[in-house]
Amino acid sequence: MVKMVIAVRKDLAMGKGKIAAQVAHAAVACTLISMKKNKKTFNEWYETGQKKVVVKVDNLQEIYKIKEECKILGVISETITDAGFTQIIPGTVTCIGLGPDEDDLLDQITGSYGLL
Amino acid sequence: MVKMVIAVRKDLAMGKGKIAAQVAHAAVACTLISMKKNKKTFNEWYETGQKKVVVKVDNLQEIYKIKEECKILGVISETITDAGFTQIIPGTVTCIGLGPDEDDLLDQITGSYGLL
Repeated sequence: MVKMVIAVRKDLAMGKGKIAAQVAHAAVACTLISMKKNKKTFNEWYETGQKKVVVKVDNLQEIYKIKEECKILGVISETITDAGFTQIIPGTVTCIGLGPDEDDLLDQITGSYGLL
Repeated sequence: MVKMVIAVRKDLAMGKGKIAAQVAHAAVACTLISMKKNKKTFNEWYETGQKKVVVKVDNLQEIYKIKEECKILGVISETITDAGFTQIIPGTVTCIGLGPDEDDLLDQITGSYGLL
């Protein structure tokens, strides 16, 4: 099975609507990248319900750690930087999207993080 | 300017991670539909920061009302039905995505709803 994971910083003062918009940015970005770069996996994900899992990380350092591990393992990832019109400082990295890719592969990177 | 709007039911007991995943489902669905059916507007949205606005509605009836108004005004919309593995009953409609489309047009439909 394949899934998409979005990891969200819990150290920012974002309300639930703000979090939802940031996660949606990441999901759309990963969707568009994977359609081009990883078509076979994208199709499998698309046809099996487009599973999305949202997890929480402590801080920006964990986002960067995830990003590095994605590079090493060849997993698509996209960090989201907020325009900052509301709630947080402009240019703040809020979350990172991973995949879609194999469950096992993504769990190597984000399996230890709890669900948001 | 163009934007995407996602309207979320506030009468369901969904946590912030659950809400974020549902909003992401809607955003990805509207993205994929608009790429095919409304390419010019999709491109404008894509190139201008992919604005997404998340609003709240009282109940399922308001989701259906929005859906009907989208049909009348020719706006792309997609309701999201949760698979129900967690938190809520399977088959529950959780949110609706609109657009991307012109700000003014979407505001005719969802402009009266508050931000989530």
